[in-house]
Amino acid sequence: MAKLKIIVSAASFFCTRIEWALKLKGLEYELTFEDWDKGKSELLLKSNPVHKKIPVLLDDGVAIAESKVILEYIDEKWKGGDFYPLLPQDPYERAQARFWAQFADDKCAYSTWRAWHAEDALEKEKAMEAALESFAYLEKQIQGKKFFAGDKIGHLDLVAGWIPRWLGVMEETGGMKIFDAERFPSLREWGENFMDIPLIKDCVPPRDVLVDHFFRGLSHLRSLEPNKP
Amino acid sequence: MAKLKIIVSAASFFCTRIEWALKLKGLEYELTFEDWDKGKSELLLKSNPVHKKIPVLLDDGVAIAESKVILEYIDEKWKGGDFYPLLPQDPYERAQARFWAQFADDKCAYSTWRAWHAEDALEKEKAMEAALESFAYLEKQIQGKKFFAGDKIGHLDLVAGWIPRWLGVMEETGGMKIFDAERFPSLREWGENFMDIPLIKDCVPPRDVLVDHFFRGLSHLRSLEPNKP
Repeated sequence: MAKLKIIVSAASFFCTRIEWALKLKGLEYELTFEDWDKGKSELLLKSNPVHKKIPVLLDDGVAIAESKVILEYIDEKWKGGDFYPLLPQDPYERAQARFWAQFADDKCAYSTWRAWHAEDALEKEKAMEAALESFAYLEKQIQGKKFFAGDKIGHLDLVAGWIPRWLGVMEETGGMKIFDAERFPSLREWGENFMDIPLIKDCVPPRDVLVDHFFRGLSHLRSLEPNKP
Repeated sequence: MAKLKIIVSAASFFCTRIEWALKLKGLEYELTFEDWDKGKSELLLKSNPVHKKIPVLLDDGVAIAESKVILEYIDEKWKGGDFYPLLPQDPYERAQARFWAQFADDKCAYSTWRAWHAEDALEKEKAMEAALESFAYLEKQIQGKKFFAGDKIGHLDLVAGWIPRWLGVMEETGGMKIFDAERFPSLREWGENFMDIPLIKDCVPPRDVLVDHFFRGLSHLRSLEPNKP
């Protein structure tokens, strides 16, 4: 039995970033899938009773939640020697990676998610503007570099790693366009470089699987919204 | 001239936690105050162009933003030897401290802030319920311990450190009651232990100064709200 398990859902990039980290460290793991149609599992509720959210890393039974916290845990537990470093050594560079990882989640991913599921046209437009503005900051960060971490991928690359596959899926299923090549040429190139890495590509769900999941997610979300006719 | 500067505002606990960290490390620093009446300073806009928010730590001119990122930076740059550790050594314990620090900001502080400035009664009630629920989680975390980090204060104590002084001020200025002694006896006791530490108490603004700032903040916020008669 694998010492490491990740509680995941099939289409969540918050989960895939944990898989990437474990693969980079050369660690074996098992995936335990949540099935939303059946409600949250006992294991998830027990392992992350506060947020009740995936992903959760189970390390020999001990649970760690919140994806960026898990990434730091992985980097700190398996470090030195031949272990691939996710964060750089220098305190200032570490602070920069953390700052932008927070930004990528709180601004880029969050505004994209808001735009994706907005039904109201004005709300959608506002969220798309916020998304474009935050992606412009990321575009500046990656200019002149192969990866956010430099020549090799690191913490921020994993956190932003949903962009090359998931963003297109969210655009298609949410009826919007954010990530055009003219506006974000460096970020597009980074995305191609990132997805060219076999270990990265191997963990990414096929596009059609994601499209299906996101269409279903949208119906589910809309069925939950109050005050619907 | 001090090598370390913090760009702060007079009443922000996000700033005070940085002061506490530097004091615990035995480092000298200068404070540069933002004056909201005059708009954001050139120094702030240059140092934190993305969020344009305090606090910013300037270390020999190099800027680091986002308070929990700054705390990690301080702990990583000044570590070992006689330097006071903010995070524990063990990867799992570090993950726990980070998880709960995120929770304390995103759930406890955020819901308190929402309740504080809500004008609509239902909105205020909902935010207060969310606050009570999240404080109940923190109460559980501190039960049976002197500090969140154990016998001595650490990362999470600094992040939650606004509770003993600022929460009461927000209750008074926002016309609400969250933090009663019967509901949160362990958290109250922790707050007293925390404020008993001279180094901690020394950085905390006097209650009346905070009350004045928060009353002014409320008027300012309300003047910004759209669609007011």
